[in-house]
Amino acid sequence: MNYLLKDENSIYYECGYSCDNAIFVQLGSESFFITDGRYELDARLGCRDGVEIIIDRDLISVAKRLLISNNIRKITIDPQEFSLFDFNELSSGLGVDIVLHKSFSQKKRIIKTQKEILLLNNAAKLGSEAFDNFISNMQTNMLGCDEFRLTHFAKEYLSFQGRYELSFSPIVAINSNAAKPHATPTDTKLNNNDLLLIDAGLKFERYCSDRTRTISVKDSTNCSLSQYFDSQEKQKVYDVVLKAYNSAIKEARSGMKANQIDKVARDIVDSHGFGDYFVHSTGHGVGLDIHELPVISSKSETIIEDGMVFTIEPGIYLPNEFGVRIEDTVVMKNGKAEILGV
Amino acid sequence: MNYLLKDENSIYYECGYSCDNAIFVQLGSESFFITDGRYELDARLGCRDGVEIIIDRDLISVAKRLLISNNIRKITIDPQEFSLFDFNELSSGLGVDIVLHKSFSQKKRIIKTQKEILLLNNAAKLGSEAFDNFISNMQTNMLGCDEFRLTHFAKEYLSFQGRYELSFSPIVAINSNAAKPHATPTDTKLNNNDLLLIDAGLKFERYCSDRTRTISVKDSTNCSLSQYFDSQEKQKVYDVVLKAYNSAIKEARSGMKANQIDKVARDIVDSHGFGDYFVHSTGHGVGLDIHELPVISSKSETIIEDGMVFTIEPGIYLPNEFGVRIEDTVVMKNGKAEILGV
Repeated sequence: MNYLLKDENSIYYECGYSCDNAIFVQLGSESFFITDGRYELDARLGCRDGVEIIIDRDLISVAKRLLISNNIRKITIDPQEFSLFDFNELSSGLGVDIVLHKSFSQKKRIIKTQKEILLLNNAAKLGSEAFDNFISNMQTNMLGCDEFRLTHFAKEYLSFQGRYELSFSPIVAINSNAAKPHATPTDTKLNNNDLLLIDAGLKFERYCSDRTRTISVKDSTNCSLSQYFDSQEKQKVYDVVLKAYNSAIKEARSGMKANQIDKVARDIVDSHGFGDYFVHSTGHGVGLDIHELPVISSKSETIIEDGMVFTIEPGIYLPNEFGVRIEDTVVMKNGKAEILGV
Repeated sequence: MNYLLKDENSIYYECGYSCDNAIFVQLGSESFFITDGRYELDARLGCRDGVEIIIDRDLISVAKRLLISNNIRKITIDPQEFSLFDFNELSSGLGVDIVLHKSFSQKKRIIKTQKEILLLNNAAKLGSEAFDNFISNMQTNMLGCDEFRLTHFAKEYLSFQGRYELSFSPIVAINSNAAKPHATPTDTKLNNNDLLLIDAGLKFERYCSDRTRTISVKDSTNCSLSQYFDSQEKQKVYDVVLKAYNSAIKEARSGMKANQIDKVARDIVDSHGFGDYFVHSTGHGVGLDIHELPVISSKSETIIEDGMVFTIEPGIYLPNEFGVRIEDTVVMKNGKAEILGV
């Protein structure tokens, strides 16, 4: 099969190396990695054996010449990986049939190999350790700090002081700001008895971790799933989300459709009258990308299989009051979901 | 004029607000900001008066309906802002002439307003302060730290402990790693007498700062342009880069072509025999994007005008030995280049 990749993670999956300016070309059994001179040394060190490295400023022209000189008739690309501009450059005067295959690389990556599961498990372990470190230092260092500073602390712990890349910019949100699923930091300062939501992850050898905890800030703050809130309403919502999270993980089975897993979590939230406040999907695949396939939503018909890795992250968001989300990343193994990193 | 924007900064420029899932539609004098429910509250608070906010999950369908219901015949987009997938969704069955205009928004933004220059100046001032803080604390905190940790420190200082977003992930590179213009961190530890290259910036109200210093790590380490290296070769290369930097800033004039400014810096590097090791352009525009127009390269025919903001950043990179780059961001004012943030 002939295909052409432009996304950094899609390319990494094929080559074992990637950078922010590269094109990968697969022609039958031959693999080509095209980048510019800045990355030559790293590419030669990093790419798997058998990948031919080509250094040139004009990546697309090189790719076109490869297709023409190899008499290629048909090449597959993912229309999400190419800007319209790059596609027009590629297709102009090419005379090759370009097949558009949405999520081409993510579909190849949906079942993780044993090695990938090990890497994802390592990422999750480190992420879990970072959450523990972050939360156990909260009482000594973080009371009185605003969300900007708390987010910075989260980055410090999650990156292990710069050792690891982050999967995404952490969300650290207090009380009403936690009611926004994609909260950005504010001046609000952390006090005892606050509700604090932390959604964060790191990358281990490019594979992402993803976790969310919602905690009650107290003298004995900890990262466990048993949290005790002063407010009855917060406790009620927390317990519903926890039940949805536990049930979805417990009941997930290989062979189910993704929307059946979503339904397990959503039915519990619905049955307690909070259905309108669970405003997102139950989960998403995790791998080289922090969001990849499978999507665990009410619409997703994907059949869940062993080797798939995805989040379970039900949430309830009461606008201007507070929000609760609990999230872990699981792998399907022997037909069931196992939480990574424990 | 009718146009449609998808890039976050392009949209921010029109609306005063943006987020990572939005489309902006301008139809004559009417402006529409389309996003999903997660961002409704922030969009209503953040968008300029007169921008109509539309909340929907399917942004492209809403945009299409707007075009059709307003009997639009012709709409401009930037082919770099749309993936092929999104473009196909947009154009399918639309019956509107789509004009492709590369860098459409960046061209609108190439001359900065007085307000934008103030914001860029504030960003540069904060960036400069962060460099001073970072470097003056080097002796006490950072000797013996590896590049991962140093990069983390740079993020801490540049973000003012989480208060500001970064323009990009800082480059902090010791000796031979500084020979890579886009160095990523390694295990190399910082020692006295090392050469240390720091390239970093922050965002003030979304406007970027960008600065590079190459310093000689000593007891009295400082951030000034006067650096004294133990090695004669390092000193020689440093002095050539400094001369190229100073001359390009001093000789830049409104009315010149961008390539003439590049030539001032390049001729100095060439004349000292290092031409082959100055492997990138002399500079790039800075604004909402860290890289925008004008490009200050040997090929750029752009006429420089008052109000343009760009970097001057000559560099010499001796593979496996060391690299030197010196960079500041300047604004063209009364025909000359003024360094921002001083």
